[in-house]
Amino acid sequence: MAAPNSLFVRACKRQPVERTPVWFMRQAGRYMSEYRAVREKYSLVEICKKPDVAAEVTITAAEALNVDAAIIFADLLLPLEVMGLPFHFSPGEGPVIEVPIRDAAHITRLRTDRAHDLGYVAEAVKKVSDHFGSKLPVIGFCGAPFTLASYMIEGGGSRNYLEVKKLMYNSPHAWDELLGKLVAVLSEYTADQVKAGADVIQIFDSWVGCLSVEDYRRYVLPRTTELVKALQHSTRVPIIYFGTDSATLLPSMRETGAEVIGLDWRVPLDQGWSLLEHSVAIQGNLDPVLLFAEWPELKSRAERILKQADGRPGHIFNLGHGILPHTPVQNVKDLAKFVHEYSSQLVGPRE
Amino acid sequence: MAAPNSLFVRACKRQPVERTPVWFMRQAGRYMSEYRAVREKYSLVEICKKPDVAAEVTITAAEALNVDAAIIFADLLLPLEVMGLPFHFSPGEGPVIEVPIRDAAHITRLRTDRAHDLGYVAEAVKKVSDHFGSKLPVIGFCGAPFTLASYMIEGGGSRNYLEVKKLMYNSPHAWDELLGKLVAVLSEYTADQVKAGADVIQIFDSWVGCLSVEDYRRYVLPRTTELVKALQHSTRVPIIYFGTDSATLLPSMRETGAEVIGLDWRVPLDQGWSLLEHSVAIQGNLDPVLLFAEWPELKSRAERILKQADGRPGHIFNLGHGILPHTPVQNVKDLAKFVHEYSSQLVGPRE
Repeated sequence: MAAPNSLFVRACKRQPVERTPVWFMRQAGRYMSEYRAVREKYSLVEICKKPDVAAEVTITAAEALNVDAAIIFADLLLPLEVMGLPFHFSPGEGPVIEVPIRDAAHITRLRTDRAHDLGYVAEAVKKVSDHFGSKLPVIGFCGAPFTLASYMIEGGGSRNYLEVKKLMYNSPHAWDELLGKLVAVLSEYTADQVKAGADVIQIFDSWVGCLSVEDYRRYVLPRTTELVKALQHSTRVPIIYFGTDSATLLPSMRETGAEVIGLDWRVPLDQGWSLLEHSVAIQGNLDPVLLFAEWPELKSRAERILKQADGRPGHIFNLGHGILPHTPVQNVKDLAKFVHEYSSQLVGPRE
Repeated sequence: MAAPNSLFVRACKRQPVERTPVWFMRQAGRYMSEYRAVREKYSLVEICKKPDVAAEVTITAAEALNVDAAIIFADLLLPLEVMGLPFHFSPGEGPVIEVPIRDAAHITRLRTDRAHDLGYVAEAVKKVSDHFGSKLPVIGFCGAPFTLASYMIEGGGSRNYLEVKKLMYNSPHAWDELLGKLVAVLSEYTADQVKAGADVIQIFDSWVGCLSVEDYRRYVLPRTTELVKALQHSTRVPIIYFGTDSATLLPSMRETGAEVIGLDWRVPLDQGWSLLEHSVAIQGNLDPVLLFAEWPELKSRAERILKQADGRPGHIFNLGHGILPHTPVQNVKDLAKFVHEYSSQLVGPRE
């Protein structure tokens, strides 16, 4: 924790700030030529495992965009490897788990004693934190238990989440054992990132929106809350809990105790915040595809989100999901600048 | 309209019924051995274009499951062909539009004068309606303008709806021309189905949930309302408007004037109905993956939905999306039977 008084960390704690902080999910990625140049030399997993390179990619993106936080470059699936589930990236298809989980015996064999083997991520966090000092906060992260379990069981991306839900419905004890093991690994993994200097941890529950409220509450909320509490107990950094398609899940997601909830664009920001009873900070929520629109449209939509937030303490501007490949970089830069300028007028008079 | 006094049609009109009607989206499909046997002889499009076969498939499924409505067997994309956009099905990948739309000039070339060339669907409707008479209502259907436009522009299924949103944001006039042309074709196509005997029309907006409320209201609601109104003007059958991922869109979807709104499982049924101010009938909303659960779990979840509907007039039991391949047929049959038995106790005392 090197930047506890930064704009971003204060906003996570719902303290007043002079302007709305902004950063972008997947801000270091293929849309950026500097990143593509690094990717010509290394695979995605190689970048993650070389702390120098991961730190460089992280720093370059944050500086190029002039945003208010640097999110460590890492892949959501890294913890799977230390649990005993190797994966690779297949061109065009995304991640492929070599032997997906389909039964309780496989879950029993998963290891939970090797979280520290992911220390290369913490090392990269340390390098970024040393680089920025108190100037810019560093975000560490992990996938949420449900989303990682989905990858483990489906073997990759999924359309209907058939296998994961089948296991959940028909083998609830095995399911709970899997989520418990994930919590054990993820809580150590993220605590290591905080020890190395991360100012905030984001938990990505990217696929949670395939669940009904009842399934979420029964099969996912208890273990996710356990992860949030474990991390709050071992560290003192704010936690951002992000999901997509989560409009009906928001009140339940709030029960995890996370300080910040990330929204996607499907729920208007003011409506989402109301559903959370304004009791947490909120992050979001521009549709990433709007970055492909012409500037007047993009600007007016960003303006609308800032107006919905209405200068209340506790809003962090972001997209509703990660930046897409081929996004025009200039639009991303202009958007960060616009959020800074426009929100300083909106927030200013209240201080 | 051969079965205006059927349970299903009365429920669509929010008239009291002695038990909750039930049918299933994609009830004639790959999960059923009778259908697979027909598919060995004909391709999907061949079945659609042979009214005898399409009617047989439709009738067999409705009778095997003992449901309260027969939905005509047809493919959502058939109208694309008569508009001048050929497509085929690629194994494993689903539909592929041969030359996707990417510019205004292509939209200008689309034809709207050949809707009646889809008459083979109406012919199949007539055969089903003649078969069932007043015993069982027939549902005709079409894709919604947004969902069909998405297929036309993306060229098939999509993850981020990048191309469709780009066209929407950056060429709003061309976008509106496209939706206008779709409305022209779809209103004739569905009116022909009603003339042939369809008792109800369902409009499938399967992909609408990728949109923010603002985008839906600006780019989709006006033309979708136009379709609903045109159909209400030319026929007198109830219209079901179905979407997925639509929790935040429900109040806007209601503004189309459709008599019934279809929900997916992401929104608890009672909460969805409240968002619609109980001013329409409602259809849904069991997660189709629950059909893979063991019977006690499946039963208790169906029971919960019926309790949420609470015996109010205007609930049609259905899934939140179509039946998936490999679904155990016995579970589907048992579910229909359970809905009949359980709801007759729940609804009965109020009559």
